[in-house]
Amino acid sequence: MSDPKFNEEEINRLHREKMERRQAARRKVLATKTEERGLLIVHTGSGKGKTTAAFGMVLRCIGHGMRVGIVQFVKGAWGTGERTILAQFPDLVTCRAMGEGFTWDTKDRARDIAAARAAWELAKEMIADPTYRLVLLDELNIVLRYDYLPVGEVVETLTAKPRDLHVVVTGRNAPAALIEAADLVTEMTLVKHPFRAGVKAQPGIEF
Amino acid sequence: MSDPKFNEEEINRLHREKMERRQAARRKVLATKTEERGLLIVHTGSGKGKTTAAFGMVLRCIGHGMRVGIVQFVKGAWGTGERTILAQFPDLVTCRAMGEGFTWDTKDRARDIAAARAAWELAKEMIADPTYRLVLLDELNIVLRYDYLPVGEVVETLTAKPRDLHVVVTGRNAPAALIEAADLVTEMTLVKHPFRAGVKAQPGIEF
Repeated sequence: MSDPKFNEEEINRLHREKMERRQAARRKVLATKTEERGLLIVHTGSGKGKTTAAFGMVLRCIGHGMRVGIVQFVKGAWGTGERTILAQFPDLVTCRAMGEGFTWDTKDRARDIAAARAAWELAKEMIADPTYRLVLLDELNIVLRYDYLPVGEVVETLTAKPRDLHVVVTGRNAPAALIEAADLVTEMTLVKHPFRAGVKAQPGIEF
Repeated sequence: MSDPKFNEEEINRLHREKMERRQAARRKVLATKTEERGLLIVHTGSGKGKTTAAFGMVLRCIGHGMRVGIVQFVKGAWGTGERTILAQFPDLVTCRAMGEGFTWDTKDRARDIAAARAAWELAKEMIADPTYRLVLLDELNIVLRYDYLPVGEVVETLTAKPRDLHVVVTGRNAPAALIEAADLVTEMTLVKHPFRAGVKAQPGIEF
């Protein structure tokens, strides 16, 4: 019969060797990553976390002292929790809510299109302003989905953004042309949602 | 030939009617959502945004004046950006980094298991502490994946959490038993990643 202590040592030795191989492989990969530049990032999919992850990224940038511009294309997408935090950093973050409410609340297509256009003009100004290191275009995909802005014009501007600027675009149904142009695309997929079980939206979680 | 102005009005009328139907349907659904309770939330998948979305949720809770506890099961997963922001709210957030570094850096299985156990004991204390409204167990899934903690024990504790407490668990490869027990599960899927194109990790985006 084998000595259990020896087995434990053997397991640990094999584990150490495996981790050494993994570490070496990881170092080799990292050594090839040398470029630093601003990214065009898209958070899409029907799951949760698209805006929340963008908000986390905004805070992370602020933590590095980087200036951030935010344009909210849909009013009401951000709650008091987010706004209270952002208000603590007035020198580093500019947040403009340009939307006129979710489209099923306004019911006025012409007004929605005008609001989308006004928000986009502001977004273009922020993108061109070299003092910003990150610009978040929150729920822009929803506006594109409704054809309130021409996708071609938006993608052209985002592709021609300053080299060092990060741009994050959120919202479900990201258009194919935007996904094509982006550097980093994450799809948030809903696996399970308590809304279906009668639980309502709650502070801290949903807003 | 039809009057183009009439067509525009017609389009707007149809749009308004469609949005009215959608708004009515949405109100009907919302009326059935009456329960308010703490959720067990899981962010998993191989894409980005799992920890970043949890960090956004932490900030949102802080914005509502809710106390938050964080246990980091893997050291180094959070960068200076996050830590600088959290340090601004010492009364509302307790953050404990218990990990001993990524496993391919330590190579010592026994030490990793001891670190995971110590972090889990701390997590249990936070879960039992009624002053916390949200507890984030960051990268717990990685520890479970390596069998450094028994999944059964962890799921049992999380299922028996206080009713009003939100618990967020992050990390790729969430075990099936945890997904089964959770109220809300989001999978972050990688669609496109600049790392593959030679771009290195950057402040604000990766850490």
